[in-house]
Amino acid sequence: MSEPVKPLRMASGRLEALGDGIFSVAMTILVIELELPKIIGHGWEAFTKAFHHSWPGFLCYMISFVVLGIMWFGHRMMFEYIARTNRYFIFLGVLFYMIVCLVPFSTRFLAQDTFKWYAIMVYGLNLSLCNLTLYAQWLYGINRPTFLEIPLPAEVRKEARLLFLLSPVVYGIAIALSFVVPMASIIIFSITPVLYLLPNKLDKYMP
Amino acid sequence: MSEPVKPLRMASGRLEALGDGIFSVAMTILVIELELPKIIGHGWEAFTKAFHHSWPGFLCYMISFVVLGIMWFGHRMMFEYIARTNRYFIFLGVLFYMIVCLVPFSTRFLAQDTFKWYAIMVYGLNLSLCNLTLYAQWLYGINRPTFLEIPLPAEVRKEARLLFLLSPVVYGIAIALSFVVPMASIIIFSITPVLYLLPNKLDKYMP
Amino acid sequence: MSEPVKPLRMASGRLEALGDGIFSVAMTILVIELELPKIIGHGWEAFTKAFHHSWPGFLCYMISFVVLGIMWFGHRMMFEYIARTNRYFIFLGVLFYMIVCLVPFSTRFLAQDTFKWYAIMVYGLNLSLCNLTLYAQWLYGINRPTFLEIPLPAEVRKEARLLFLLSPVVYGIAIALSFVVPMASIIIFSITPVLYLLPNKLDKYMP
Amino acid sequence: MSEPVKPLRMASGRLEALGDGIFSVAMTILVIELELPKIIGHGWEAFTKAFHHSWPGFLCYMISFVVLGIMWFGHRMMFEYIARTNRYFIFLGVLFYMIVCLVPFSTRFLAQDTFKWYAIMVYGLNLSLCNLTLYAQWLYGINRPTFLEIPLPAEVRKEARLLFLLSPVVYGIAIALSFVVPMASIIIFSITPVLYLLPNKLDKYMP
Repeated sequence: MSEPVKPLRMASGRLEALGDGIFSVAMTILVIELELPKIIGHGWEAFTKAFHHSWPGFLCYMISFVVLGIMWFGHRMMFEYIARTNRYFIFLGVLFYMIVCLVPFSTRFLAQDTFKWYAIMVYGLNLSLCNLTLYAQWLYGINRPTFLEIPLPAEVRKEARLLFLLSPVVYGIAIALSFVVPMASIIIFSITPVLYLLPNKLDKYMP
Repeated sequence: MSEPVKPLRMASGRLEALGDGIFSVAMTILVIELELPKIIGHGWEAFTKAFHHSWPGFLCYMISFVVLGIMWFGHRMMFEYIARTNRYFIFLGVLFYMIVCLVPFSTRFLAQDTFKWYAIMVYGLNLSLCNLTLYAQWLYGINRPTFLEIPLPAEVRKEARLLFLLSPVVYGIAIALSFVVPMASIIIFSITPVLYLLPNKLDKYMP
Repeated sequence: MSEPVKPLRMASGRLEALGDGIFSVAMTILVIELELPKIIGHGWEAFTKAFHHSWPGFLCYMISFVVLGIMWFGHRMMFEYIARTNRYFIFLGVLFYMIVCLVPFSTRFLAQDTFKWYAIMVYGLNLSLCNLTLYAQWLYGINRPTFLEIPLPAEVRKEARLLFLLSPVVYGIAIALSFVVPMASIIIFSITPVLYLLPNKLDKYMP
Repeated sequence: MSEPVKPLRMASGRLEALGDGIFSVAMTILVIELELPKIIGHGWEAFTKAFHHSWPGFLCYMISFVVLGIMWFGHRMMFEYIARTNRYFIFLGVLFYMIVCLVPFSTRFLAQDTFKWYAIMVYGLNLSLCNLTLYAQWLYGINRPTFLEIPLPAEVRKEARLLFLLSPVVYGIAIALSFVVPMASIIIFSITPVLYLLPNKLDKYMP
């Protein structure tokens, strides 16, 4: 007990590695859910008809894959600033991963009941919770100076908040619309990822 | 034979990487087992009724995910102290991973037969064995001075033993109770992970 | 706002780690799709007959595994030159991974409808798109001097283009042939990977 | 063309990372194949009867997990000596991974037809080919001086050959026996991994 307490290194590397593993599995198993189109006949029409039937599955696959990619990117960016961790930060990380791992489930749900309000709600909530739990982890991390590898510019802090909270707001609108025009919700789900591809204020920190 | 024997580096990095892979797959495939709720009707009631039906699956998913997260954390902490390995240490590691990989199986079992003593027993035994095999690996590792990267404080050694043995004891109680009040066992499974989230004596070694 | 902008490191390491995860999952789940041969009887004939029945599955498994291996290799080689990334480069990477993750799907499709033009077309398109999206990422990366770790020899640039565009051309021929002699398409799919194993001009950069 | 040829680094790190990913997925998906025991009744007898029914699945799971663990270990040890790669070495690596990824398939086969000669043959051949392809990679690697990080003692070279060739020989015997006493083959499969746990001449190179 009288030994001097020397803090551990608690580098973030392994938490990042676990995350890379979880994201890569979650992204890849999305495709397991894709059903093979049942093609009756041999002509072009039979083919397009069968694929026409399974387009919701493909659309949901693509949306979820890109959304997970964007979240992975946000997660990755977090660790440009944060280099050390502690027990509570890691538990917030596990919470985030738990929500991320549900995305293949809610994707399957949306692919099955594409225009039903409950599938849209579950999907929208799932994606929003991904952002919110990651944001919680981010807030915890950037407020512990010992965690930071490089100082966090005020602008990054502000822009990150915007980016973290953007999709929960947009997905909330999608959920609300699902009771009236579910097609609008699906369009919102399809367009939101594109918003994250537009140039933003953080681009100038990129090489 | 007359060449001088120069020990290999045997860094722990790849064993950790294998573990990160195994944990991330085991955690992610938990969700594959989750069945889509079958919703009949369009109203709120139909939705809640269907999800009400599948809550054991979700609860088991969440418990197992958090428990695996905690075990991953323990595993990760071990390597803050241990930086080198040998053949026997690695075999103990493979044994631990083998037990960890059974968690999705026993989770599926518990989700199916939630209040049956045998499912509770298999689940409780599985989680206990995870802790015990990890503890065996830890004991082997910390008693070989060449493995240690930094000296192991006596307090850490003591607290770690407590944390390793806590859940087998608690899960033993849960198994015993399953023959009388299986609901109590499920409550214990749900609460135990929370115990690991409470502040403990190792927190002061964190940055 | 008046703080000086210091570019982030944006090392490529984590994008590579995500790719390694995605490739390893995609390659391994190919085998999940393999159906167990149903063997009726006990003799050698019953055995060979059953395996004879399932050879398309095995052949597709092997082709896809080797093709994914070659793509992983190309991906890996890219990062011998490129060491830093930015948001757009990473998004191109996610796009590439999205196409890669579809390979188990189109493999399953080809294993089911081996000699149908539509399965051959989907499979050939999938593999071609893998190459083309990786090529897009490569082109983006090598044209940003800040990304490069070592200078890119002109010969490598030229040979890489050839290797990237070789398979889309060859697979285009396979797709065209599928309407006439589908067997020829399957033979082309089987032989193309071998082309990448032949000595090429980049070998002299290898240790 | 007149630029001087500077060899690439071609570090083995990413090939190892791909391998860690593939092994962790292959090991974890073994458990997906495990069927839940169907328990009819509530007593101890009903439970043991149901598990008695599914013991071949569990036994095959355990054998395959430990065997894959041992192969991963051999693979890992190879990279204590080999630190650089080239195109051909990597292709041999992909070949090895392809055989490794078939292990969950042949495990499923053996779990289904435990005492049939053809399941035993497929399983034994699969494991033998794992060893032989890894041995081919090892031979290629250790004979290229530029690959080696540390010099390879003659004793290690000799002992490694023994360890690589031990299991193909033993599995050959198991396959031969399967036509007469299939139970003997299963016992051999169960015992062989233990042989790799016994002390051997390479232990003295361990820390």
